[in-house]
Amino acid sequence: MPLVIDLATAKTNKYASRESGDTVEFVERPTGGFSAVMVDGQGSGAAAKSLSLQLTSRAVGLLKDGVRDGVVARAVHDSLFAFRGGKVSATLDIVSADLKTRHVIVTRNAVTPLVVVDNGEVSVVPNETGPVGLYHFTRPTVEQLPLKSGLMVVIYTDGIHTAGNRSRAGTFDVSAVIGDIQHLCNSSQDVANAILDQSVARDQGRPSDDMAVVVLTIAEHSGDPLVRSINMRIPLP
Amino acid sequence: MPLVIDLATAKTNKYASRESGDTVEFVERPTGGFSAVMVDGQGSGAAAKSLSLQLTSRAVGLLKDGVRDGVVARAVHDSLFAFRGGKVSATLDIVSADLKTRHVIVTRNAVTPLVVVDNGEVSVVPNETGPVGLYHFTRPTVEQLPLKSGLMVVIYTDGIHTAGNRSRAGTFDVSAVIGDIQHLCNSSQDVANAILDQSVARDQGRPSDDMAVVVLTIAEHSGDPLVRSINMRIPLP
Repeated sequence: MPLVIDLATAKTNKYASRESGDTVEFVERPTGGFSAVMVDGQGSGAAAKSLSLQLTSRAVGLLKDGVRDGVVARAVHDSLFAFRGGKVSATLDIVSADLKTRHVIVTRNAVTPLVVVDNGEVSVVPNETGPVGLYHFTRPTVEQLPLKSGLMVVIYTDGIHTAGNRSRAGTFDVSAVIGDIQHLCNSSQDVANAILDQSVARDQGRPSDDMAVVVLTIAEHSGDPLVRSINMRIPLP
Repeated sequence: MPLVIDLATAKTNKYASRESGDTVEFVERPTGGFSAVMVDGQGSGAAAKSLSLQLTSRAVGLLKDGVRDGVVARAVHDSLFAFRGGKVSATLDIVSADLKTRHVIVTRNAVTPLVVVDNGEVSVVPNETGPVGLYHFTRPTVEQLPLKSGLMVVIYTDGIHTAGNRSRAGTFDVSAVIGDIQHLCNSSQDVANAILDQSVARDQGRPSDDMAVVVLTIAEHSGDPLVRSINMRIPLP
């Protein structure tokens, strides 16, 4: 059966802050496939938003020029480090369904773990690198997984990882949530919304940081004709 | 009541062609708001796809750098004309919900009309320019509409405009379809899917050209917290 790429994000801003420092963009790869770019700019508010927009702009531009993901991450770091001299940091995650190599590639300069689901089995890939912008020659960690039905990868920013910490709710085990809800979810958007909802609930409805989650699922389909769709819903304050 | 930006696309490829020359990308604007870029590259198959990916890459890169939409369209034209010497053309549509000017801006080098719905009243804005790439100093047509609830704009490529022509079904009046279905649709995605479905049906299930439609709706919402979402569904052949 042919495969379907199902990519979704859900995000919200810190309570009482009009702008989120977490930016997510989805783009088509010139060599075939799709990529999601997620950036969490240091701090919150307007400065963090401007930083994360600037870094996603650079990452998206390079990806759309056909530059390989690991080089994009290094270039975003080098440029930030060159202009801001190690004083400003950001996390950068790139999740790609690459149809040329038939792999899902996850390229990360993150502070949060990556969750991988393979036919219902949930595993956590701990984070080994830090954010971009702070030190010379920062490199990303890269995970490559064969593109096949039943694969799901989930990445999220710090605001979700630490949700509930202030209210002493204990560490938020996102992988356990995914294990619990995955059989109830029909799409990546369902999974992303469920994770965001639980994060917001752990912060008592007032997120103590910007929050973003990206979910990529590879499944089978039998649709004909092949209709591709993208949709975006942006409620304004 | 606060507003919500609801942006969607549906697209499919010409029958028996693996690749669509129509490319659509959604990006966040650095000065606030969102843009959709739709490019229909001349011809069909791999060459058209490569051309449309190259032009959307340039348009997206400039928009993400904060360049104004009219300049983006001129730059995409100039670059294509410089390198291909008037031998290759493409249509380019940019639809933006611009939060800085509080307007919806539609910038077009198209061969199809634009449909605008204002609180249920459907009107057609005829196309006045042609595609990019053919002549010196091509300029886009620009429509600016105040950002307010009840506004919907719909753009689509040639494959939808001419759907059914081969079977002598008469001209496809997309604005009439929108008038008929709008009260049944809850989202931009519903409208986009309905238009694409009818186009494919007019071509007897075998699209005689690549087809893409983009729908932007401005509505009201009462959601709290403000959750932004994007999702993308790509069935592979």
